[in-house]
Amino acid sequence: MASRDRRFSGLLVPVVTPFSANLDPDTERFCRLGRSLLAQGANGLAVFGTTGEANSLTVGERLRLLDALLDAGVSPTSLMVGTGACALGDAVVLGKAAVDRGCGGVLMLPPFYYKAVSDQGLFDFFAATIDRIGSDALRIYLYHIPPISQVPFSLDLIGRLTEAFPETVVGIKDSSRDWAGTARIIEQFPGFTVFTGSEAFLLDTLRAGGAGCITATGNVNARAIAALCRHWRDADADARQASLSQTRRALQAYPMVPALKAILARATADPEWARLRPPLCRLDDGTAAHLFADLDAIGFAAAGIATTEAPAPA
Amino acid sequence: MASRDRRFSGLLVPVVTPFSANLDPDTERFCRLGRSLLAQGANGLAVFGTTGEANSLTVGERLRLLDALLDAGVSPTSLMVGTGACALGDAVVLGKAAVDRGCGGVLMLPPFYYKAVSDQGLFDFFAATIDRIGSDALRIYLYHIPPISQVPFSLDLIGRLTEAFPETVVGIKDSSRDWAGTARIIEQFPGFTVFTGSEAFLLDTLRAGGAGCITATGNVNARAIAALCRHWRDADADARQASLSQTRRALQAYPMVPALKAILARATADPEWARLRPPLCRLDDGTAAHLFADLDAIGFAAAGIATTEAPAPA
Repeated sequence: MASRDRRFSGLLVPVVTPFSANLDPDTERFCRLGRSLLAQGANGLAVFGTTGEANSLTVGERLRLLDALLDAGVSPTSLMVGTGACALGDAVVLGKAAVDRGCGGVLMLPPFYYKAVSDQGLFDFFAATIDRIGSDALRIYLYHIPPISQVPFSLDLIGRLTEAFPETVVGIKDSSRDWAGTARIIEQFPGFTVFTGSEAFLLDTLRAGGAGCITATGNVNARAIAALCRHWRDADADARQASLSQTRRALQAYPMVPALKAILARATADPEWARLRPPLCRLDDGTAAHLFADLDAIGFAAAGIATTEAPAPA
Repeated sequence: MASRDRRFSGLLVPVVTPFSANLDPDTERFCRLGRSLLAQGANGLAVFGTTGEANSLTVGERLRLLDALLDAGVSPTSLMVGTGACALGDAVVLGKAAVDRGCGGVLMLPPFYYKAVSDQGLFDFFAATIDRIGSDALRIYLYHIPPISQVPFSLDLIGRLTEAFPETVVGIKDSSRDWAGTARIIEQFPGFTVFTGSEAFLLDTLRAGGAGCITATGNVNARAIAALCRHWRDADADARQASLSQTRRALQAYPMVPALKAILARATADPEWARLRPPLCRLDDGTAAHLFADLDAIGFAAAGIATTEAPAPA
């Protein structure tokens, strides 16, 4: 089975979730963006993470979006499916659905309601989830995002999980914003597939032996990020990284998901994109104008990103 | 309708959720404990909160436990039903279920995945939930527990919610562990029903005009806490408070939910009670022995708490 042998690499984009006026997930726009991102050169889609407002969706809503993507022709092997949940049963349903559909892997948050929980408790949660999914095809990427989840994966916990489930727990997305920490994971766990959560660390990650990045900004800057993934051994790699980092700095001065949706709305001349589910809020007009001015000042152009599906340039 | 005119007061106990060996909720023991706590003098049950490991349960598991309690003869008007969820749709299903069954109210967490969200975003979440439940019978108690949720209710947000939904947003459980903050809420919002989340502040709360407490330790100390709620104007109120505070201090030196379950297991000679769902873990034997020694040293006796259903003394 493809998903048993293939590891993800390069750029995976955590697709934003558009919402209709009554706050339902907008399946049609979601699928259009997902297909467009792959056409722009993304190596995969990390659906249902923080950027996708997935924890603001019910399990049923996530499953319907997943099936819509597959119905729209997206290959399951290109999908890393977020299973973020506090309840064991929810994580199992989401993980099982991903496996049943042949998805390339799952991106698994720790249960995030209780804080300061023990590594043993987190290990038990993962062990119970893996046991209940009960499939050799399951490939788990740990979702390390302490600024949001407030529940980190310690190096010791990563070690215990990879030792206990070497064929299943195969990688991590490190959204700690701490490059030294990412470097330690790459160094300490050879063969583990490590993604940085920010393209600011993409070249460092690739040079250290990491796999690539899973980054929110891929929603609006996929071509350039994917290009660095392909060309990181080339002479112009540092210049490419500098450009990516400049764009990243401009974007992360704003609330990330609202900013991405504002950019998509402008680029497609489609205000529907700007809507978020509470508790997130759209950028107010003044803040959006500032963001656009900042991006214009660095020559960032995202026109057409969500409407074209032309194949990516080599 | 009773739930429209009645406010909760006194002691509400956030019932712990027992689990079977395969980690399923143990409905029979759950109902037995709930009935016992009411028989011990609790004024109500705040089911599906932090102590009940509710966010470790799926929505379906919570609904089944709710129905089991009602089937076991517990009056819906004695139930404050936790609706803790990050997804609007889940909060709506849980809140609607509580209203449809005639429950006295709901205890509503803010969506707790995203951190540092705006008051506007939280207001929008509550407004959308209230709108979708669409019932005049809905009574919401805000669940303020920043140490766990990491998403606080500001005074400004409480003000906006009570102003916009004066008949619906009727109270709060303040588990901030900050008495000065609780006092400010009581002072600033006359008519708002304020519960402290710790019996350490029970007498202060009642004297300041608050309604009572919703406290984890009620699972093992309901009689004494309920007695202070009845006798807080009596001459011995300070002595009662001192005794409660002493027990509280002993208990909160340990992880609270595991400690409560260990005490229930010992008091009932039924080791099934000691089990938790990951990411929480049972106390190891050494820690449990320490806890029991600490409790014995202050003369705390919880024998029979979960097995008797004798009526509470006057």
